[in-house]
Amino acid sequence: MLIVQKYGGTSVGDCQRIKNVANKVITAKNRGDQVVVVVSAMSGETDKLVGFMQSFCHEGYTIPDGRECDVVLSSGEQVTRALLALALQSQGYKAISLSGQEAGIITDNMHTRARIEGINTSKIASLLSEGYIVIVAGFQGASLEGEITTLGRGGSDLSAVALAGALRADLCEIYTDVDGVYTTDPRIEPRARKIEKISYDEMLELASMGAKVLLNRSVEMAKKLNVNLVTRSSFNNNEGTLITSEENIMEQPIVSGVALDRNQARISIGDIEDQPGIAAQIFESLSEKDINVDMIVQTIGRDGKTDLDFTIPKTEVIVAQEVLKKFADFYGELECDCEIAKVSIVGVGMKSHSGVASLCFSAMAKENINIMMIGTSEIKISMIIEITRAEKAVRALHKIYKLDEK
Amino acid sequence: MLIVQKYGGTSVGDCQRIKNVANKVITAKNRGDQVVVVVSAMSGETDKLVGFMQSFCHEGYTIPDGRECDVVLSSGEQVTRALLALALQSQGYKAISLSGQEAGIITDNMHTRARIEGINTSKIASLLSEGYIVIVAGFQGASLEGEITTLGRGGSDLSAVALAGALRADLCEIYTDVDGVYTTDPRIEPRARKIEKISYDEMLELASMGAKVLLNRSVEMAKKLNVNLVTRSSFNNNEGTLITSEENIMEQPIVSGVALDRNQARISIGDIEDQPGIAAQIFESLSEKDINVDMIVQTIGRDGKTDLDFTIPKTEVIVAQEVLKKFADFYGELECDCEIAKVSIVGVGMKSHSGVASLCFSAMAKENINIMMIGTSEIKISMIIEITRAEKAVRALHKIYKLDEK
Repeated sequence: MLIVQKYGGTSVGDCQRIKNVANKVITAKNRGDQVVVVVSAMSGETDKLVGFMQSFCHEGYTIPDGRECDVVLSSGEQVTRALLALALQSQGYKAISLSGQEAGIITDNMHTRARIEGINTSKIASLLSEGYIVIVAGFQGASLEGEITTLGRGGSDLSAVALAGALRADLCEIYTDVDGVYTTDPRIEPRARKIEKISYDEMLELASMGAKVLLNRSVEMAKKLNVNLVTRSSFNNNEGTLITSEENIMEQPIVSGVALDRNQARISIGDIEDQPGIAAQIFESLSEKDINVDMIVQTIGRDGKTDLDFTIPKTEVIVAQEVLKKFADFYGELECDCEIAKVSIVGVGMKSHSGVASLCFSAMAKENINIMMIGTSEIKISMIIEITRAEKAVRALHKIYKLDEK
Repeated sequence: MLIVQKYGGTSVGDCQRIKNVANKVITAKNRGDQVVVVVSAMSGETDKLVGFMQSFCHEGYTIPDGRECDVVLSSGEQVTRALLALALQSQGYKAISLSGQEAGIITDNMHTRARIEGINTSKIASLLSEGYIVIVAGFQGASLEGEITTLGRGGSDLSAVALAGALRADLCEIYTDVDGVYTTDPRIEPRARKIEKISYDEMLELASMGAKVLLNRSVEMAKKLNVNLVTRSSFNNNEGTLITSEENIMEQPIVSGVALDRNQARISIGDIEDQPGIAAQIFESLSEKDINVDMIVQTIGRDGKTDLDFTIPKTEVIVAQEVLKKFADFYGELECDCEIAKVSIVGVGMKSHSGVASLCFSAMAKENINIMMIGTSEIKISMIIEITRAEKAVRALHKIYKLDEK
């Protein structure tokens, strides 16, 4: 079996932890697997480097040169990749470490947030066939011009997934400090269970829940390249969660998980003039300010006028209000509510089961929770409710869909 | 003018200091010079990295893979070179930073102690002609196979000197935390003066004095490539010391400086059998153990037997005694004295002046200091004396050669 393992910053946070990682790698190697290991910088290292760079950013000079930033940012991974090689060699194993560039990771030249354009796997493939454990610095690649680039947030996960895809690896294991993906946040519902298998699409919809584990960017790439992704802890031997394509999951649960997002605010615009294109103009103006609109509900109001409700990140409320002032002539009232939460149930089984939504609404009614907005996709139902009722709602949903039962 | 400036670890020890370095570079640039800057890692960084690596060295595994070590060791310079570029850019200057490899520094493949084999200056030259300040990571290069290498102790100075030579720079400035080379250690003789100009050969002979400023390796390369070397402080604007070829120094002082070395031990072997080749065998055996013999004096003793005195580093005494045991049949007595010091006067003017030595011996006599051994070269006189009299000797010599006078 060919596996790609990725270890994050806390997993390689000091030399003792790097030794632990070496032992995990050795376990796989002794099992007979070919192993490629992707490592992040030691935890705290990247923040330190960012701090250094910020001290050279002052007013009137806001755009530091990405090329130089990437040289600084990529240095942390260079240290850990070579240290892990030394750790493996000291145990008598054949190991070699590569920079992103040496590993053949080719990106565009958008420094500090480059996109992977392709991977030339010939060097890794030949090292693997010579029996080497191959360690690769995560988070980095090189442009066609040979300049070092970094991949932005979650970049090391992305390196691992992209390498697994290019090498047609059987498995890509992402090691972090949590055990995997849970049916809901165990701090809210202690009876939350770890999910054994979940589809890419469900994982993407559970983003707010899964963000601590995996960024959507990596899941999307795994889906595209059809990479079997496992997220698990580097601090124990527990099985993690397998994120894979729907076909690989024999028994689809109707609902896989309950997600909670407390970072949304609701904007309600009442009595909008019935003039074609007003809504489009509003969303275009918000988009120009990089404000990400999530749920949108439009209803016919009185006298042919319409009401428009939508949610945006709480952090963008002030900017959004500024934008909406421009349209003041076209609407009646504007309301902004930051005391809301979005509760979602996610499950591919919804596609083929009826009655999922009604079960959900009746659970809310039973708990006396008022639903302000509803949004649905093929595999998700989201509800906007009062933030004070959010945890109660999560527990009720977790129970009604029997997520605490094996 | 084209100048190469090199800043050591304490000079780039934190972001404020990197800003100071940027200001020094800007001063040169504003003067109209073309500037290439070589930087070390932030002070303490390399030690930290070495510490990391050592934690993977255990008994039974003593030779870590140099290739991986060099990846770790070279990372510190990568950070500072890019940070200095950002600092210069934030002041509105065109600056770009290069790795050793990008700068065209080609080495052999002796990892962790590579030798520079050549420099391809085309990239730096073209960047300079485009008006860039070019910053280069010191201490590193790359082998012909493209692997990162490091140059060993004093490697950043060496990078700077080699670049200055290859670029035919007018000047190579080595910035440290001391003002330059002094006529003697100012902690011993407060009237010690900073030397304005000194020849390569004198600098090499003053090694024990200059070690804190420059390693012989860099001075030797400067001599070979005919590089005008200046050593000065990055913490003030004082003029430093120019190290150059003899022809460039108009007025040669008879004695340029007084050096003191307290790290030597004296071995005296008495009554050696008068058998050809014994001395050669002794020194060969010591050399096999990497013991560096400094001064050697052989005298005819009684009955045609000879006495052999020599000095070695104090740290090697135990190993040396072990080696000498093998020859016990061939000599009478063995004495080992660690309570000695070597005091030397150095000056190219000696070549053409007589009476230099006699002045020196009479000064010692006047102070009642017993000279145990004497060694001379064309431009140096060294004396082995009791360690307790060492500082007194230095002050006496400093005075008798009028080194405290301008």
